[in-house]
Amino acid sequence: MHLGIDVGGTNLKAGLVDDQGKLVQVCRTPLNFCGAEAFVDALGELALRTVRESGVDPASVETVGMGIPGAVSEGRIIYTSNIPLQDVPVEKWFRRYLDVPVFLGNDADCAAVGEYFHGAGRGSRDFVVVTLGTGVGGGLVIGGKLQTGLGMGGEVGHMVIVHDGELCNCGRKGCWERYASATALIRLTKEAMEQHPDSRMHAVAAELGGVDGRTSFTAAEQGDPAALDVCSRYVSYLAAGVTNLVNMLQPEKLALGGGVADAPAALLLDPLRRTVAEECIGRHAGVYTEIVKAELGNDAGIIGAAMLHRAVR
Amino acid sequence: MHLGIDVGGTNLKAGLVDDQGKLVQVCRTPLNFCGAEAFVDALGELALRTVRESGVDPASVETVGMGIPGAVSEGRIIYTSNIPLQDVPVEKWFRRYLDVPVFLGNDADCAAVGEYFHGAGRGSRDFVVVTLGTGVGGGLVIGGKLQTGLGMGGEVGHMVIVHDGELCNCGRKGCWERYASATALIRLTKEAMEQHPDSRMHAVAAELGGVDGRTSFTAAEQGDPAALDVCSRYVSYLAAGVTNLVNMLQPEKLALGGGVADAPAALLLDPLRRTVAEECIGRHAGVYTEIVKAELGNDAGIIGAAMLHRAVR
Repeated sequence: MHLGIDVGGTNLKAGLVDDQGKLVQVCRTPLNFCGAEAFVDALGELALRTVRESGVDPASVETVGMGIPGAVSEGRIIYTSNIPLQDVPVEKWFRRYLDVPVFLGNDADCAAVGEYFHGAGRGSRDFVVVTLGTGVGGGLVIGGKLQTGLGMGGEVGHMVIVHDGELCNCGRKGCWERYASATALIRLTKEAMEQHPDSRMHAVAAELGGVDGRTSFTAAEQGDPAALDVCSRYVSYLAAGVTNLVNMLQPEKLALGGGVADAPAALLLDPLRRTVAEECIGRHAGVYTEIVKAELGNDAGIIGAAMLHRAVR
Repeated sequence: MHLGIDVGGTNLKAGLVDDQGKLVQVCRTPLNFCGAEAFVDALGELALRTVRESGVDPASVETVGMGIPGAVSEGRIIYTSNIPLQDVPVEKWFRRYLDVPVFLGNDADCAAVGEYFHGAGRGSRDFVVVTLGTGVGGGLVIGGKLQTGLGMGGEVGHMVIVHDGELCNCGRKGCWERYASATALIRLTKEAMEQHPDSRMHAVAAELGGVDGRTSFTAAEQGDPAALDVCSRYVSYLAAGVTNLVNMLQPEKLALGGGVADAPAALLLDPLRRTVAEECIGRHAGVYTEIVKAELGNDAGIIGAAMLHRAVR
């Protein structure tokens, strides 16, 4: 039995996962941040509560894994993007609560590990997850092991695909995440709506209570030309980065996660697969990476955190 | 003792390499292509001649590795870019000459393997070589193993960094190799020379017998503003792709090879290191990939081919 903890900006979520990757118990607690020690105390108490409520023998918990929105190294959080944590000895403090090996990982990496062992990546050797959300996250599994390099590898969203393009939060210009995230899709949608006051996107946005990642896809399904154009431009940016990854790593499978991945396949996955197949180097040898949807949804992070012990080198 | 063969478009080069990575014997033969079987015969004869001329006991040759300018898979050449070879069972035919295990690799991958074990990559776990020549080649060594994915991974030159940019031979638009190869540098140089008839680049080109990858760097060293501008634009493109690789894989080391890598460090390596350090995600955790020059020059391919047996998964 393995415990996974998903550290979000506003919530902590813990889950007990059995060897088949099944979540047998999940507990949550809001994150009321008041210092690093109290933060680790909250993790410890949540872990104990999860074990207690599951009825599982605490001695059967072999490892704990944690998905952190930031950078980690050898049992420590180096820093996080949304929580004021810097150089925190998480493993050392946490083991006061549950004295088992603690594995720390980046949250996007945990999602990739979860999908690799128990979701869309099952059975592959090399596997990439790309998560389309507020940003573009990613995780690379190479030969069954998480590729983190010096500790922060797998930052696929911060690959420049438009030299001198839009300024990214990371300081670079033209990062993939500025063009392929849900945020970018919404920006493209709003720009097109301004240029096309007669587009169906206005009615769709009014119905759905505002412009979001679904607006253009919904209007495009109804045949709206401006929306179709937004979708195809978005897919073109998405395909650029996916093809880059495929040319570089040529994994058996690449899975798309995040809200945008739920868009109609005819408008997202199908044209994406077509473009990548037409552009990738592997086509010369008839060798193609399979592009699929992620399967585990919000559970990927917690399952992957619990499985981290199998994926770290 | 291991034998490496470097298959070029015009020459075949074989070398015997000892366990310390030292080339103890090198033999060459021109490639007069007249069919796939004759091609493999030429490889076999070259291998036997190399062993014979070295005076080494043929029984001490444990493996043969071959660097092929194309795609390979399980002892076969799938296709090559410059030689008309398609689906050739090289291992099977070659073993009529020397009956030892045969390892096939892409030529750029072999260069990376050579540098990894006996050159600029020594001592690192994850290592990337980027070769700046006619195109931009590359090889990824992850955890000591060559990352080829489904067989053709590591194509770093065909990563788009300028969405909808210059058309590449591979069919994509805006590939890194269209901006960071020696070919691209020469194009940038010629464009700048046309715009600046008073630039020192004209005199430098006349002295060196034509425009090449050194023209802009030589004139820039003499303070020519137009040449300095070419160099800094070239470095900006080079840095874009290098930073992409660093953000994705975060290897301990990344080595630059090919003719352009010999440019004065003050104009190439120094500003490249500065830009990558300023832009990479790892800077938030004070974690940096070391960017170095490749060390083995033209021998990298042959040494790497001989070492392939250690790098394949």
